[in-house]
Amino acid sequence: MENFVSWNPTHLHFGKGVVEKLGKTISNYGSKVLLVYGGGSIHKNGIYRSVMDQLLSVGAEVYEYPGIRPNPIVEDVDAAARLGREKDVDVILAVGGGSVIDSAKVISATIPVNHSAWEFYGGDEKPKTAIPLIAVLTLAATGTEMNPFAVVQNNATKEKLGWGNDHLYPRHSFLDPQYTVSVPGDYTAYGIADLMVHCTEAYFDGGDASLSDRFVFSILKEAVEYGPKLLDELNDYELRARIMYAATAALNKLTMHGRIKGGDWGVHQLGHVLSMLYDIPHGASLTIILPAWMKYFKKRLSGKIARLGQNVFGTETADDAIRAFESFFQSIKCPVRLSDWGLPQINIGEILEGMAATNPSGNEIKMNSKDYPNLIDLFQ
Amino acid sequence: MENFVSWNPTHLHFGKGVVEKLGKTISNYGSKVLLVYGGGSIHKNGIYRSVMDQLLSVGAEVYEYPGIRPNPIVEDVDAAARLGREKDVDVILAVGGGSVIDSAKVISATIPVNHSAWEFYGGDEKPKTAIPLIAVLTLAATGTEMNPFAVVQNNATKEKLGWGNDHLYPRHSFLDPQYTVSVPGDYTAYGIADLMVHCTEAYFDGGDASLSDRFVFSILKEAVEYGPKLLDELNDYELRARIMYAATAALNKLTMHGRIKGGDWGVHQLGHVLSMLYDIPHGASLTIILPAWMKYFKKRLSGKIARLGQNVFGTETADDAIRAFESFFQSIKCPVRLSDWGLPQINIGEILEGMAATNPSGNEIKMNSKDYPNLIDLFQ
Repeated sequence: MENFVSWNPTHLHFGKGVVEKLGKTISNYGSKVLLVYGGGSIHKNGIYRSVMDQLLSVGAEVYEYPGIRPNPIVEDVDAAARLGREKDVDVILAVGGGSVIDSAKVISATIPVNHSAWEFYGGDEKPKTAIPLIAVLTLAATGTEMNPFAVVQNNATKEKLGWGNDHLYPRHSFLDPQYTVSVPGDYTAYGIADLMVHCTEAYFDGGDASLSDRFVFSILKEAVEYGPKLLDELNDYELRARIMYAATAALNKLTMHGRIKGGDWGVHQLGHVLSMLYDIPHGASLTIILPAWMKYFKKRLSGKIARLGQNVFGTETADDAIRAFESFFQSIKCPVRLSDWGLPQINIGEILEGMAATNPSGNEIKMNSKDYPNLIDLFQ
Repeated sequence: MENFVSWNPTHLHFGKGVVEKLGKTISNYGSKVLLVYGGGSIHKNGIYRSVMDQLLSVGAEVYEYPGIRPNPIVEDVDAAARLGREKDVDVILAVGGGSVIDSAKVISATIPVNHSAWEFYGGDEKPKTAIPLIAVLTLAATGTEMNPFAVVQNNATKEKLGWGNDHLYPRHSFLDPQYTVSVPGDYTAYGIADLMVHCTEAYFDGGDASLSDRFVFSILKEAVEYGPKLLDELNDYELRARIMYAATAALNKLTMHGRIKGGDWGVHQLGHVLSMLYDIPHGASLTIILPAWMKYFKKRLSGKIARLGQNVFGTETADDAIRAFESFFQSIKCPVRLSDWGLPQINIGEILEGMAATNPSGNEIKMNSKDYPNLIDLFQ
């Protein structure tokens, strides 16, 4: 068991009606609010109205930056940061899923500086401060609501990268499972897949963190038990609540304590290449990659994959475990091959080129250009 | 699943050598330090010296309040608070186990007020502020290092009571498993028992919080797997680390999310009566009570007790589960009857009188004077 620091400053407000506390909470941070959201679904499902009612009730001055894309781009982050800087906002309110909240995190660190957000992704620039961020989550998936991580992509350099910094934790996150009821079946399934792969990434760290492993199994079993039921009953509050909390717990660092590097994360890096190239939703990119990745590294990880299957699916061998993951993803209608995604054709050269742009690799299971063709062969 | 707020401000520094960061951390809060500790074992095992080196390295002005008892009393809390008030301390440093850190929490809230700490236990007085508290944990058991709860006893009123308030979270807690290596087998076992009963108390809430239940099973399995191994190898760092982290996770609210009342806690209330009357260590009081409590409420909780056993011990029925808990506690040499504690004689009238002083009851499973004689009959 490795040394670790457990600390998470986010206030997570979970349950029915919690957004009623939003206005008062926001007003503790100031009156000028940068409201960041996505493609406008919050106008259709009534969430925009509820949030604006809260903001108006405390007399907030609201500046809107809508239009964050499902795979968010750094140009939006920079433009929203310019708006926030110009209006001298006190607080950022992000209403949406992972792409919106991730973007808002990077906006919060970019407003106080005079360079593009992308410079934080090189690793040299580090924020010294950030504008307080408050989030209202509308999609259970990435866990961004209670962690310091943010993924954005740069179309110019063809990179989709993750970054983490303690300044990026939301101060408060409001999670009302009712707000996720209008999410359609496919995106609900991608969210379930996403939370599951967050668990497996943490698990495939090289360390020996027994309690964190047990938490991984717990969250995976929660997804395996309630995920399919939810897809049968998309309006069920209780099932929405269980999956929503599971998604938060899957990436609020709980599964990472005592590990060497907080997990492997190689499957995510490979998945980001597919999302970047083909605009595949994040969760779907992961279900394409994970089975291939486990097959390719099966010899090395045999005992670990088998133990994962034993604890989550009650299977026995590593092969059984891989088959169980694959079948589960298929049962919730997630792709397990790139060909399942329905691209007109698969251009292997293009994928290799995409990989060359970021050189995806894991913290524990290293990968390089010799591995990519074999991996593509397994997931194409 | 009930609404909940997940928030925990404590920075938990876990692992080998973490106390090297103590001096610098303390100095962020000021230079006048009230150092609170217990019976002096920290003088023997070198911990006092390590802590003082840290304090001296940052030029701290240290006022000591030693002598906190294993079952801490409110007189000590009030006296230490007077010292802290008189010296106008900036920060409290608690070095010890649950009794020391619990006392220090209440001291931190009592210094700024002009009444006895006991008034907080009535429920009407609430602290508006508290002196920052930093903890160095030397015993894995109560979880106090990362929660807002504090138990003290009042010998005058014969009450031992718990209290929780958001001001009571330690700002930082330092957990070096090496600091627990000198804890003897009996107290190591009581700590294991204590963390296990924290899990069962959370579980016996009336709500339906599936992921919190899975976390309960995870922590219990960790204790059942590594607890006995640790008692065979008291010097083993890895085993000390696993039990230490399990004890923190068992009561840092993780097991409580989504529950109706955060757990039942009736077993603790009954245990406090035994600790109060016979100075029985907290963990040992719980292993005397839990089997009797499960037997007495078996009919009502049959399905729930059975499911607990299935998930932790692989047993089948509620009776099997109760037997498994009893055998496990016996295997780690914890008492499962009051008679195991070796009192010269058991005075039932005295126990009933002790119960009458606090009327122990659970949040979910209510108890009253009609139940006490039957419970005593089962645990005597």
